[in-house]
Amino acid sequence: MFSGLLAELVQNLKKLPGIGSKSAQRLAMYLISMEKVNALELAESIQNTVKNYKNCSVCNMLTENNPCHFCSDYTRNQNQLCIVENTQDIYLIEDTNEFKGRYFVLNNLLSPLDGIGSDEINFPKLLELLKSDGIDEIILALNPSAEGESTISFLASQFEELKVKVTRLSTGLPFGGDIEYTSSLTLGNALKRRYSVKD
Amino acid sequence: MFSGLLAELVQNLKKLPGIGSKSAQRLAMYLISMEKVNALELAESIQNTVKNYKNCSVCNMLTENNPCHFCSDYTRNQNQLCIVENTQDIYLIEDTNEFKGRYFVLNNLLSPLDGIGSDEINFPKLLELLKSDGIDEIILALNPSAEGESTISFLASQFEELKVKVTRLSTGLPFGGDIEYTSSLTLGNALKRRYSVKD
Repeated sequence: MFSGLLAELVQNLKKLPGIGSKSAQRLAMYLISMEKVNALELAESIQNTVKNYKNCSVCNMLTENNPCHFCSDYTRNQNQLCIVENTQDIYLIEDTNEFKGRYFVLNNLLSPLDGIGSDEINFPKLLELLKSDGIDEIILALNPSAEGESTISFLASQFEELKVKVTRLSTGLPFGGDIEYTSSLTLGNALKRRYSVKD
Repeated sequence: MFSGLLAELVQNLKKLPGIGSKSAQRLAMYLISMEKVNALELAESIQNTVKNYKNCSVCNMLTENNPCHFCSDYTRNQNQLCIVENTQDIYLIEDTNEFKGRYFVLNNLLSPLDGIGSDEINFPKLLELLKSDGIDEIILALNPSAEGESTISFLASQFEELKVKVTRLSTGLPFGGDIEYTSSLTLGNALKRRYSVKD
């Protein structure tokens, strides 16, 4: 129903996650209806951000500064390394205030069928980082999905020869969750991994 | 949790309708993670569109060309004028394939408390258009909301002296709606405006 520049804008907006045809049309209409200065500010902000963000040369996180502020902050615990799938996960973990160590971003999870092997999860770069630093715990903060589990298995086996503790995020019932709506796999695991109420 | 350019981008994204903090953060992360060329294409597309869209000098619609393609399309019925609140509504009406006349965009609905009077709904421009053309039906395609109803009343009273038919969109139960969940106002109106099953 749209044509010309507007149709093009709708197509470009549709490339964003969670934006379908209807939302893209609504956003496009809003962009041409709103104060021009605000819409142009948004466009410029996208350009500036996109042009200035790149992967940290140490940990792979998307960052404005290289090395990123986590890698250049020596007040953080240099002995713990948390391995995450993507930069977004770092922010989520930071929000919990439960971790003050370093990070490494894989950027992918292993998925041989999609051609994603150890190079695509930046394993060589990770080995480089592990060589040069005194890490004594590696936390695999990856999704307990099929790809996450195989990445955890792969990394755990690779780390065996290193003298480091390798841990993963706990699995079980999420707080606020309901046993009735929990998959049997999750529930079985929660039983197996039950812990003392005093812990 | 974000800083610098990324925080600014999140703020700018949050100005869009239906985009809250979480969505803005997710979109911003996506924008810096996606192929740079695609993100920059989106930014450029916003700039081009925003810079080139303006109100049609005749009907007020937001358009790339002035006059817009509706106003310059003389194959459309020149005797019917459909008055809508905004440009988006034109596209929605076009999608129904039920109307082939001309449009006029008010850009606002009357709301004296918010300082929106007849000038803000472009009434002088509308009168200009009505003077110069042979309109014989005016369709008030406005929301049946408080502001919509007062705009309909105002326009209807202003049009009384013109020798034109003034109509409004039908009101009643929406298709797929459920009487049980229909407001008493809507249901009462639907009873009052009931029509023969043969119509």
